[in-house]
Amino acid sequence: MNAPLPQGVADAAPWSPAEFEARLRAKESGYHIHHPFNKRLNSGALAPFQVRGWVANRFYYQLAIPMKDAAVMSNCDDRETRRRWLLRMLDHDGHGDFEGADAGGIEIWTQLGLAVGLTREDLWSQRHVQPGVRFAVDAYVNFARRSPWQEGVISSLTEMFAPKIHADRLAGWPSHYPWIDARGLGYFRARIPLAQRDVEHGLEVAMAYGSTREKQERAAEILQFKIDVLWAMLDAVERAYPDDLAPGLRP
Amino acid sequence: MNAPLPQGVADAAPWSPAEFEARLRAKESGYHIHHPFNKRLNSGALAPFQVRGWVANRFYYQLAIPMKDAAVMSNCDDRETRRRWLLRMLDHDGHGDFEGADAGGIEIWTQLGLAVGLTREDLWSQRHVQPGVRFAVDAYVNFARRSPWQEGVISSLTEMFAPKIHADRLAGWPSHYPWIDARGLGYFRARIPLAQRDVEHGLEVAMAYGSTREKQERAAEILQFKIDVLWAMLDAVERAYPDDLAPGLRP
Repeated sequence: MNAPLPQGVADAAPWSPAEFEARLRAKESGYHIHHPFNKRLNSGALAPFQVRGWVANRFYYQLAIPMKDAAVMSNCDDRETRRRWLLRMLDHDGHGDFEGADAGGIEIWTQLGLAVGLTREDLWSQRHVQPGVRFAVDAYVNFARRSPWQEGVISSLTEMFAPKIHADRLAGWPSHYPWIDARGLGYFRARIPLAQRDVEHGLEVAMAYGSTREKQERAAEILQFKIDVLWAMLDAVERAYPDDLAPGLRP
Repeated sequence: MNAPLPQGVADAAPWSPAEFEARLRAKESGYHIHHPFNKRLNSGALAPFQVRGWVANRFYYQLAIPMKDAAVMSNCDDRETRRRWLLRMLDHDGHGDFEGADAGGIEIWTQLGLAVGLTREDLWSQRHVQPGVRFAVDAYVNFARRSPWQEGVISSLTEMFAPKIHADRLAGWPSHYPWIDARGLGYFRARIPLAQRDVEHGLEVAMAYGSTREKQERAAEILQFKIDVLWAMLDAVERAYPDDLAPGLRP
């Protein structure tokens, strides 16, 4: 995050808005959709304990998201932005009862956990969460706590790439993993339109932030940081659940 | 905040819940309701420019409250608490259009500003905000950013004493300050029931936090810190708007 920018960047002409957005979108090449573990996950190559390991670890990220979103607002002196951003907390924490449509992403992810054969306690105890996952997710929350709110917003722009990864799961899992109750896949379904709404807001903020070439480069660097967070999570999950893991250690 | 606790506190028996609550409530003796400037404000002794100065400075506190509340949530890993606490952001930032009942406290305070003869620009530009007010309010927000969420909650417990100060304003201002359009006093009216709801939640958190005498003492110390924030704000306002302030310097 703090590596010096290349020589001359401070003086370079800013990219056009279209070029700036294209540079951000080009970060897709490092998105965890291309991670070997995700490729195996979404092509049906994983054993049930590996799917469970992924779901239990990713839950730690789900738990952290509302805290990250609150951190962005805690640094944001713009009331309009807070009013819009607060919807993200509602999306994840929920605002109705936990049975209904507004149960929130954390609860809906819990339903996914149950559908893959984990217990509620498996998830909420965080007993399966790997240190590498914890460090990566905590780095993301701490970045949002300590950065100007615009930078916290920019770090969320991996949402640009999320609809595809969710759609892959919805398309493939029912045939690859018939043992998973398809009603458990609601999280992926729910996130597609929400991600699109969030990206629209996030790009607005990024465009306003990127007023100089230096800040545009900084925005790209921030997005790379978030890309690295997601990738590092899968590295840790992949290492924790090898194909030959002793049965007694499997979630 | 960081002064060492008195000798022996760590070993002392905890106060009973009733005694603990009474100790917190006893902090009322230092609440800014007793500040000389507030006494003059609520007894009708101030000139219009002094009332304006107070309203414009206190607005900085109003602007900061949702950021403080977001900071509490950014440190809070308890979903239920976040769901309840988020209402405080809605109270201040609003969640309807800015004309209606859900305009939010910041907008309703803006209406108070207009009623005392300030412009929207006087408030939002922060041009009248005194450095001492800024430092005190910022200390409060930074405390919430850096403290365990339970301590951030406890710092909000000056709300226990707020209904009286608001009721005093509602009762006295219309006769003391007939030049203020009474429709501008909506903020004080709105806060009384909200403060009562917030105190109920805040005391629950404080009671759970105060499991040892040391933590009970710490809670009382945190509340004193917040009492000091409010008091310091009035010190700065009082000093900025003396009775003999040159007319050209008056807001």
